[in-house]
Amino acid sequence: MTELNQRFFDKPIQPLQLKAIRQEIRSGQFIHHTSGLAPGLVQANIVILPKRYAYDFLRFCVLNPKPCPLLHVSNEGDPQINELGDKLDIRKDVPKYRVFRHGILESEVTDISSFWQNDFVIFTLGCSFSFEEALVGVGIKLRHIEQGHNITMFKTNIPCQPSGPFKGNLVVTMRPLKPQQAVQAVAISNRFPSVHGAPVHLGDPAAIGIEDISNPDFGDPTIVEPGEIPVFWACGVTPQLAIMEAKPSICITHKPGCMLITGLLNQALAIA
Amino acid sequence: MTELNQRFFDKPIQPLQLKAIRQEIRSGQFIHHTSGLAPGLVQANIVILPKRYAYDFLRFCVLNPKPCPLLHVSNEGDPQINELGDKLDIRKDVPKYRVFRHGILESEVTDISSFWQNDFVIFTLGCSFSFEEALVGVGIKLRHIEQGHNITMFKTNIPCQPSGPFKGNLVVTMRPLKPQQAVQAVAISNRFPSVHGAPVHLGDPAAIGIEDISNPDFGDPTIVEPGEIPVFWACGVTPQLAIMEAKPSICITHKPGCMLITGLLNQALAIA
Repeated sequence: MTELNQRFFDKPIQPLQLKAIRQEIRSGQFIHHTSGLAPGLVQANIVILPKRYAYDFLRFCVLNPKPCPLLHVSNEGDPQINELGDKLDIRKDVPKYRVFRHGILESEVTDISSFWQNDFVIFTLGCSFSFEEALVGVGIKLRHIEQGHNITMFKTNIPCQPSGPFKGNLVVTMRPLKPQQAVQAVAISNRFPSVHGAPVHLGDPAAIGIEDISNPDFGDPTIVEPGEIPVFWACGVTPQLAIMEAKPSICITHKPGCMLITGLLNQALAIA
Repeated sequence: MTELNQRFFDKPIQPLQLKAIRQEIRSGQFIHHTSGLAPGLVQANIVILPKRYAYDFLRFCVLNPKPCPLLHVSNEGDPQINELGDKLDIRKDVPKYRVFRHGILESEVTDISSFWQNDFVIFTLGCSFSFEEALVGVGIKLRHIEQGHNITMFKTNIPCQPSGPFKGNLVVTMRPLKPQQAVQAVAISNRFPSVHGAPVHLGDPAAIGIEDISNPDFGDPTIVEPGEIPVFWACGVTPQLAIMEAKPSICITHKPGCMLITGLLNQALAIA
């Protein structure tokens, strides 16, 4: 590993740095979470499914736009998505993938070339890392970025709208904020509907079925300090739970936190 | 026809009026365009297709969110959409429908009960009437509402992203505005991404392939007065052109301008 381990969220990314990041990811050298990496660029959740599941899953996303904000749906069988980045190859350009068979996590890999099928459809979903940049831009310090660890994620008891075999509860990310920052964070993230938008909850974790705020279901724990409240946003890991319910013959996703770095600009996603 | 012919866009609608509107539409008595009717409530474009076309059409909408902002996708075969309004019945609750067979307009009817199939999926798309209310709210006079005629619609030369057999050019609505109002209208409609959002063009009609601004392809003509510029928004009639290209065995839509009046609130669609 090179200096890419040093996250540089508050500095604009240089083309050479971006090229280095892409190369390290594509070659399988960079296998870590991407929070704080490649500032300015949209990062995305990935779900890959055979075509026969595509309608029900696409409808699941449309009916649940907060956890599943669609950025793109690929052509069947085409691993290149030029709309999201020049020569982007979905088989190699995610740091770490998860391969599910019949809803069960089978393996984590850095390259899915050997799994590729001609009936695969790639769903690209927005990720909260996009609005984090806008939060940092107004001076809000985000603890997981400050401490260099992965975002904190929880399962909730909030049901999603089902679609065919895809169903399950909402997954959320959690960021502890001072009340005044929480107000700012609501206003700012509300401007980014295509990357989860405004929070789904703030305050009492038990109200959405989270029993232990110090023990996340995905990612790393983040301490909520005295005087802070936890703020919860819909999370792109939600479809992974729906996939475990639907049990498709095969499904490939990113590993939570290890996102696809696209060539799109975060700023272009803002509304108003 | 009753007093419903008197549009009351600038007055809040009363429950009894709403009940009367619904009853007149459901019974086939009200067969006119719905612009300016039922203030406060979301009006919607409707596309009904057999399930076998649903994935390609749903993906067409996701890839072209400005003309095709999805509000809902129904369960297969279910004509009731309670999510959009109490006991809403899609077979009767649109003032006028168009029935297409193999891409050709076959008939216009006020009730589609006799056409209903158990494999039908109903796609509900946002409509610019929702942001018109916000424009009127800041004092912008919209000529088609003032004059009580249907919105002006044009085909353009801007191609949509294709999806399977669904392809074609963008259709736009046109509203003539003074430059200062046009600026306001951009800012306001931008807050409503789920009902077409900000304009796609303003000024020179020829730049988007419109040869004669006085001769619309759908709806009624609106004169552009000296000192005004035409402002163009993506329009929910766009999918009707894509359907004519795709030539599905059957497809039912609303007649342009004769929208579904839902029970959702326009204000709830605003961002920021």
